[in-house]
Amino acid sequence: MTVIDVFAHVLPPKFLAKMNAIHPQILDQFPYMKNALLTDLDQHRTSLPADHQQVLSMVNLNPEDFVDADQAAELCRFGNAELAAMVRANRDVFPAGVAMLPLNNIPAALAMIDEQVAGSDALVGVQLFTQALGRPITDPIYEPIFAKLAAIGAPIWLHPVFDTHKPDNNLTFSWEYELTQAMDGIVAAKYFRKYPQLKVIVHHAGAMIPYFSQRIKYIQSAENYADFHKFYVDTAILGNPRALELAVEFFGPDHVLFGTDSPFGIPPVGPTAVIEQAVRDMAVTPEQKRAILQGNWQRLMGAMQK
Amino acid sequence: MTVIDVFAHVLPPKFLAKMNAIHPQILDQFPYMKNALLTDLDQHRTSLPADHQQVLSMVNLNPEDFVDADQAAELCRFGNAELAAMVRANRDVFPAGVAMLPLNNIPAALAMIDEQVAGSDALVGVQLFTQALGRPITDPIYEPIFAKLAAIGAPIWLHPVFDTHKPDNNLTFSWEYELTQAMDGIVAAKYFRKYPQLKVIVHHAGAMIPYFSQRIKYIQSAENYADFHKFYVDTAILGNPRALELAVEFFGPDHVLFGTDSPFGIPPVGPTAVIEQAVRDMAVTPEQKRAILQGNWQRLMGAMQK
Repeated sequence: MTVIDVFAHVLPPKFLAKMNAIHPQILDQFPYMKNALLTDLDQHRTSLPADHQQVLSMVNLNPEDFVDADQAAELCRFGNAELAAMVRANRDVFPAGVAMLPLNNIPAALAMIDEQVAGSDALVGVQLFTQALGRPITDPIYEPIFAKLAAIGAPIWLHPVFDTHKPDNNLTFSWEYELTQAMDGIVAAKYFRKYPQLKVIVHHAGAMIPYFSQRIKYIQSAENYADFHKFYVDTAILGNPRALELAVEFFGPDHVLFGTDSPFGIPPVGPTAVIEQAVRDMAVTPEQKRAILQGNWQRLMGAMQK
Repeated sequence: MTVIDVFAHVLPPKFLAKMNAIHPQILDQFPYMKNALLTDLDQHRTSLPADHQQVLSMVNLNPEDFVDADQAAELCRFGNAELAAMVRANRDVFPAGVAMLPLNNIPAALAMIDEQVAGSDALVGVQLFTQALGRPITDPIYEPIFAKLAAIGAPIWLHPVFDTHKPDNNLTFSWEYELTQAMDGIVAAKYFRKYPQLKVIVHHAGAMIPYFSQRIKYIQSAENYADFHKFYVDTAILGNPRALELAVEFFGPDHVLFGTDSPFGIPPVGPTAVIEQAVRDMAVTPEQKRAILQGNWQRLMGAMQK
């Protein structure tokens, strides 16, 4: 059975060259992105275990953080086209890609969803980060993106970033809190009620929601508690079968998808083997494991094509 | 078998009267503290299920937030004496109490540990909050408190408060993040290495540590990963047996103690019944359940008396 990793990252080389042209040695600011598996297609392919496929999203190098609205739109469009071409040329290992959007240019972002995602044979959704340009992703200025993606049935891949307003960010825990706060914001903004077709795939196994689900139940409304169950989540917590079981218990076995955050997490090639073993060690049925490793992705894509 | 709740709160009436004398209607700032179960001993006793005991700590109304160093010391000493008297007069239901300290007066706080905790027949440890006076509890100015408590073998009860520097605090998730960051700070400061007898009982089942344990493993040092296992944790996450199993898996069955945060959490009398049912529903051995509900507390106290 082919295992499908729904949350793996790349940094396509021509897009990186464009970013370097704007900001020489741009990766000196992000040393963890200096990873050949992100930019070298051959090495990336070689690093993949047999019978594994990856849904590719860009690493967190967002044009809107560096350039103006027009240039950001141009760079995102270029990067998306390069990613789509990479998917088309490597269908055996990359079933799909995930687009990036210029969040300093909402009209262009909306147009880009129409042009590069809706009806695309390669890019099937959009990656959003928990904050953009210093604002929470649930700031009303970004709401039209949620509305349009829901309208076309394309999922959002929700990835964490640090909130630079906070004084004590660290790599171990802060991203998990930011994911949690963004999920809380999405529920509080009632996006699942306003946009019933909205699909959000949350990185890192749904962050703090499964462990603290009963705080939601007793502190928030019954409607909110129900809405928190509507997220999809991946398995990217570097192992921990009992924790993944907790994610399955909360979100349901049809809302958990194998995802690894490769090539990050465990050097040199990422945590794919460790996370896959954790899924195989879960106390769930064989059918549920197959759904997590492959079937839930196929069902999600099937639902999009209706 | 008597069930012992290690994390229950009160607000003794004479101490509250003193705080009201300083700041009239002080509870208008903290409406959730307007709860008769906190201040009325008879109602509190009546609310307790049969065969249940509670280790009492003060609700989060800390003199240092309102008055100067000398007055804070006086108020804490007074409150501790009142709490100790309450314990002594109600041994059948209150096996012990937990002292409060004036964190704007470290010399007095250290003296108070000697006078009111070391060798006391009623107050067996100290409650600290994740921050005090706008600084993390691991700020070096507070380190002598950790050192002294470790020296006398008395546990710290670690309770969350909001970090007012952060722009997006909420009741559902932010306390869990603050507990996590304080635990991370305690490990990073190497307190478990410097003070091998240090015992910290963390509220809310160890917050984010069990679900994200493998991030600690792969991102931090092996020494840090080992140190995170040294915390004791309670069960105060309002239910969720699978999550409690995850806490037991990480911290060990001898480091999880029944604790509820009563009378908060689930009106009108607190979450005792819900949390006890979750412990009884855990997939652990009957011996481990007994340890969580009673034995681990007795062992912890036995170790103190050596």
